[in-house]
Amino acid sequence: MERTYKTQMEAARKGIITPEMKKVAAKEYRTEEEIRQWVSEGKVAICANKNHKCIEPEGVGSMLRTKINVNLGISRDCKDYDVEMQKVQAAIDLGADAIMDLSSHGNTIPFRRKLTSECPAMIGTVPVYDSVIHYQRDLATLSAKDLIDVVRLHAEDGVDFVTLHCGITRHTIDQIKKHKRKMNIVSRGGSLIFAWMCMTGNENPFYEYYDEILDICREYDVTISLGDACRPGCIADAGDVCQIEELVRLGELTKRAWERDVQVMVEGPGHMPMDQIEANMKIQQSICMGAPFYVLGPLVTDIAPGYDHITSAIGGAIAAASGAAFLCYVTPAEHLALPNLGDVKQGIIASKIAAHAADIAKGIPHATDIDNKMGDARRVLDWDAQWECAIDPETAKAIRDSRSPEHDDTCSMCGKFCAVRSMNKALAGEYIDIL
Amino acid sequence: MERTYKTQMEAARKGIITPEMKKVAAKEYRTEEEIRQWVSEGKVAICANKNHKCIEPEGVGSMLRTKINVNLGISRDCKDYDVEMQKVQAAIDLGADAIMDLSSHGNTIPFRRKLTSECPAMIGTVPVYDSVIHYQRDLATLSAKDLIDVVRLHAEDGVDFVTLHCGITRHTIDQIKKHKRKMNIVSRGGSLIFAWMCMTGNENPFYEYYDEILDICREYDVTISLGDACRPGCIADAGDVCQIEELVRLGELTKRAWERDVQVMVEGPGHMPMDQIEANMKIQQSICMGAPFYVLGPLVTDIAPGYDHITSAIGGAIAAASGAAFLCYVTPAEHLALPNLGDVKQGIIASKIAAHAADIAKGIPHATDIDNKMGDARRVLDWDAQWECAIDPETAKAIRDSRSPEHDDTCSMCGKFCAVRSMNKALAGEYIDIL
Repeated sequence: MERTYKTQMEAARKGIITPEMKKVAAKEYRTEEEIRQWVSEGKVAICANKNHKCIEPEGVGSMLRTKINVNLGISRDCKDYDVEMQKVQAAIDLGADAIMDLSSHGNTIPFRRKLTSECPAMIGTVPVYDSVIHYQRDLATLSAKDLIDVVRLHAEDGVDFVTLHCGITRHTIDQIKKHKRKMNIVSRGGSLIFAWMCMTGNENPFYEYYDEILDICREYDVTISLGDACRPGCIADAGDVCQIEELVRLGELTKRAWERDVQVMVEGPGHMPMDQIEANMKIQQSICMGAPFYVLGPLVTDIAPGYDHITSAIGGAIAAASGAAFLCYVTPAEHLALPNLGDVKQGIIASKIAAHAADIAKGIPHATDIDNKMGDARRVLDWDAQWECAIDPETAKAIRDSRSPEHDDTCSMCGKFCAVRSMNKALAGEYIDIL
Repeated sequence: MERTYKTQMEAARKGIITPEMKKVAAKEYRTEEEIRQWVSEGKVAICANKNHKCIEPEGVGSMLRTKINVNLGISRDCKDYDVEMQKVQAAIDLGADAIMDLSSHGNTIPFRRKLTSECPAMIGTVPVYDSVIHYQRDLATLSAKDLIDVVRLHAEDGVDFVTLHCGITRHTIDQIKKHKRKMNIVSRGGSLIFAWMCMTGNENPFYEYYDEILDICREYDVTISLGDACRPGCIADAGDVCQIEELVRLGELTKRAWERDVQVMVEGPGHMPMDQIEANMKIQQSICMGAPFYVLGPLVTDIAPGYDHITSAIGGAIAAASGAAFLCYVTPAEHLALPNLGDVKQGIIASKIAAHAADIAKGIPHATDIDNKMGDARRVLDWDAQWECAIDPETAKAIRDSRSPEHDDTCSMCGKFCAVRSMNKALAGEYIDIL
């Protein structure tokens, strides 16, 4: 059946409840009308390219379950696509909602098409990474049209959302030079656009030809993820004028996209002291009129390479509890190396913890059900029931089994000193043997 | 030279600046008078038993650097004291401020004395754990005097702070039964006192004979860490009447201790949804008149066994940023097994990240110095300088080295796509080769 609308947003505004909206409503314990209303207002994005047939649609919005994204893809230093497919499978198994293919080497087309033809998660890309690779020509030689044509290629390939750094302009070049940030620009895509502008003398094509971008995104229902080129790369740069000035432009671009019924997410920090996070989320919500906020981190300190899944779990949990809708995972390899399979797993679990903790705090419907089940299982020392509630049962079980307790009901930490055991006996009026 | 005061608090109130206050002032970038004033008011505790001669004193208070504690000690299932000493060394090397010896098996005296004669960190214990072991008699057979005598023994042995669950009473028995908490009492010491009260029919000796406890603590300058027996053991129990009623009693007991110049810390949650943490910290500050708050977690979800160092890093960072002064580490083995050396290390690093993130947010003097140094090192891609700023240089370096980049200045994640490299070249007006 031919669709009578181009995008989810257009449908919502026409009063149509799409099959995707129905599925999202059911998963989120919301009415179909609530979802339709939020999509029409841009507060929920359902990233679902019309060419991504196998997608299990999800809604991204601050009033829905916080979603998590997993970055994958090969680099020149790590170019094994089989390993990347293992990571994809692991990510899906662990419950990732989205996968961004950030490949920056080799023949990128087959991997991307494999993702959109086989993978049920939302698929995202950063087309500017792929442009240099696609044309096999260096950055300075590419035209604005070349860059935009890669966006079209990704849209045709079924990519659900594309990160485009539309918010920096030639004015940003002066600003970065003037404000002497400690870390300048740490966004990979942002730095490529910056470099391209410096070398060609031209305006940012994603800004200059934004209307053409909107045409492409409208045609395939690609959600634009407005990249934050000036996201702070260290806590000293957080919330500075470069970051906030770009955010203001992202707000303007959000409005222009919505005028064409194109769905938008807005990307956010970055490295940021804990005390600035909530204010940042609120400012984004007001400037971008409630568009879903997609954050990378925030990392709450700069000094923990090897543990940035933890620094970003702290910041991500606070961000999501304060209004961010979508967390990009960060792995222990951040700042150091391309993540391996183990890093990917650690990154996903840390992000899931942050997202779930925020969902509890925000009062997302039924978020605490699983925690309550875990509490019940712990009270009766039912270990099998505990594994059923655990975010990673295999790891939890392995830790317990590696140090088997003398008494089956307790664990090797407390043994007969187990508080749960003592309390159960005390409340049952039984004698409590400790020794 | 004979001391003219019994406790740091007494000295502070007499206008004496002790050698310990001087050391704390120097470390914290505060004046000696500021420290003296805070100690006199009970807002900073310097836990330093007069018999712990080798201590490097630290101050615990919300306006000072957030301190972290490491729990160690053997259990019946894991009884190798040499392994525990390895953990002590690792903890000291990783920068733990305090070590609690929670041994619950065997001959506990030599290990405890070794700690207070060799270890520069604050040493804490939970005497009620040791009572059953010390007398080698089961809990129900011990008298109130037996339990208090173990407190005295620990004080004589040089223990700097003791956790005593003084805040539960016979009334708590009815309350726990009436309110039907999901997890009842999960505090190990609290459950032992509860069990003892149930079996003997007597009042909690640490409450009934609190004045005797104060005499002991005053004599040796042992800081009382007022245990929270009713801390929530799952998010459903957070902030319930059992928890808050005990907190009210801890406030009363804080006042009584301060009347005798005995230093106090107050222990806190526990498992708690993120959105309740700040309020909890503020309530503790008001009810306990600014006494340092020592928190275990809070764990922001119940469903992550194997990863509770992360759930508690999220909660601990928020707690410390909201006023908690002291974080008890939580390891990946929490709820599952006695932590091994690797778990201890993971737990310490996660706690240090939480503490440091909070110190940045609170504006603790010079907290951001090391982050700024890291930012500078990253901007110039100076990897050796980055390792110098890293919380765990060995792990960070190992990750980078395991996937060596083609180009020495970048890493295998981005290679020539490195944003820092591109920006440095762009700002220097150089050509940027990406391919």
